[in-house]
Amino acid sequence: MALFNTLSIIGPGLIGSSILRKARENNAIANKLIVADNNPNNLKRIEELNLADVVTEDLTEAAKADCVIICVPVGAVENVAQAVLPHMPAGAILSDVASVRGKISLKIQQILPQNISYVPGHPMAGTEHSGPDAGFSKLFENRWCLLVPPPHTDPHAIHKMEEFWALCGAKTNILADEKHDRICAMVSHLPHLLAFTICDSADNLSGELKTAVLDYAASGFMDFTRIAGSDPIMWRDIFIENKDAILDTLDRFILNAETMAQAIREGDGATITNKIEHSRQIRRKLIENKQV
Amino acid sequence: MALFNTLSIIGPGLIGSSILRKARENNAIANKLIVADNNPNNLKRIEELNLADVVTEDLTEAAKADCVIICVPVGAVENVAQAVLPHMPAGAILSDVASVRGKISLKIQQILPQNISYVPGHPMAGTEHSGPDAGFSKLFENRWCLLVPPPHTDPHAIHKMEEFWALCGAKTNILADEKHDRICAMVSHLPHLLAFTICDSADNLSGELKTAVLDYAASGFMDFTRIAGSDPIMWRDIFIENKDAILDTLDRFILNAETMAQAIREGDGATITNKIEHSRQIRRKLIENKQV
Repeated sequence: MALFNTLSIIGPGLIGSSILRKARENNAIANKLIVADNNPNNLKRIEELNLADVVTEDLTEAAKADCVIICVPVGAVENVAQAVLPHMPAGAILSDVASVRGKISLKIQQILPQNISYVPGHPMAGTEHSGPDAGFSKLFENRWCLLVPPPHTDPHAIHKMEEFWALCGAKTNILADEKHDRICAMVSHLPHLLAFTICDSADNLSGELKTAVLDYAASGFMDFTRIAGSDPIMWRDIFIENKDAILDTLDRFILNAETMAQAIREGDGATITNKIEHSRQIRRKLIENKQV
Repeated sequence: MALFNTLSIIGPGLIGSSILRKARENNAIANKLIVADNNPNNLKRIEELNLADVVTEDLTEAAKADCVIICVPVGAVENVAQAVLPHMPAGAILSDVASVRGKISLKIQQILPQNISYVPGHPMAGTEHSGPDAGFSKLFENRWCLLVPPPHTDPHAIHKMEEFWALCGAKTNILADEKHDRICAMVSHLPHLLAFTICDSADNLSGELKTAVLDYAASGFMDFTRIAGSDPIMWRDIFIENKDAILDTLDRFILNAETMAQAIREGDGATITNKIEHSRQIRRKLIENKQV
């Protein structure tokens, strides 16, 4: 017997289509897959890839599932929730995969019917690619999915989503919204902001130097550009929604960079090596944690 | 007939031992390989790996070659050059593989005998690992090696080093010191500085948050930490030697980051997406240039 009779994915992008691929492979997840999108091209691709039993542009139809997972950019989650919630059957679970919590949970709790549970989860997995063709069934394997249900959420619903993510191959942890957002500001949002900024800085160089940078990028610069290929709308929404934590994290980062700059300016070798040694320790811990 | 009768590598670390491995594979490079180091453990490893015909701690002995390549951290290049130059045979070539030019060439020109040519080259290749065991013969394959000979260097000597790097698998280009340093500040030194700083910032977090960051690093943070494992002494020397270009590049980077921060603070979605779009273009150009 599958965990869900009907699972509905709204927004079959990288994350959504990876869930669908996994559900096609592992039939313990759902008996029936519904996919909704406001872009008919995406639905066409999902049909061609045979990743759904029903594709629809109609959110009312997509709402008729025992689990609806909203996989759209952060800024669009609330609108989609408003459209589906009134049509979801009693006892169903609403989820989303937003990379930032911000005020989303508060807004959704205000419109959440009593008989629906809201159990959002943020899978800490992704690539710089987007769209239905970017997904793959192993995306979540051994990755964390951070569950961020509002306080007092039905424990049975939380448990079902834990099972769902385990069937997808992920490990789960439950976190409060604010803590989630502060962690993600550091591990994901700041790196993306820096990656966008370093590319932007290279783009601002004078012609000759810019060409040279592109020619000789294989020395560190390259590492920073992978995530700079990420989706602009998705990241605009994340930056705006997690504004406070990101700006705070960036401030502390710039302060740290300026301490390093000051040591370089003064030729203070001891401070420089000390900071680099600290960095290596972090790197070593990551290797021990098998994150790399 | 090999390009060099005797090739001497001083400092068999990642770069030096990669040259040795390549020279063992391709006997068009040199008939005889001498390796010098002030660390007996490194020489022992080179012997165990059978990467040299002669190993020595004596720089006078290592100087007796028709090409001597200094592969030590930037800050030690001048001292090693001082030790070997008086003992090098007439017509020989001195080289180094320093990642930054700074004042090195000026200092070495002051002590350069008339019958020795100085043709340093910076191979734009590397990993975050160091030492004799870190090298591999394919390290330079299809990578750039930027040659930075002083003005008026004997063209025959330059041509020999172009041939040498071609035999190592690299493409070469000739650049003036200052341009080299400005390019490297952007493509390599700034990314390393940012990588060290982001790790350092994570390390400065309070205990609970720091543990969480290490647990959930697989979302961008990880990309930035690879190069943060690099050698502290090597990077201290690079930062100090290329101070002006690095501080200037960092200033412009921080200014750019603050423009993005301001857009986030004001919820100015158009500016944010515009900056991300610019980044993607750079990423696309890199992919077209086959740098990734």
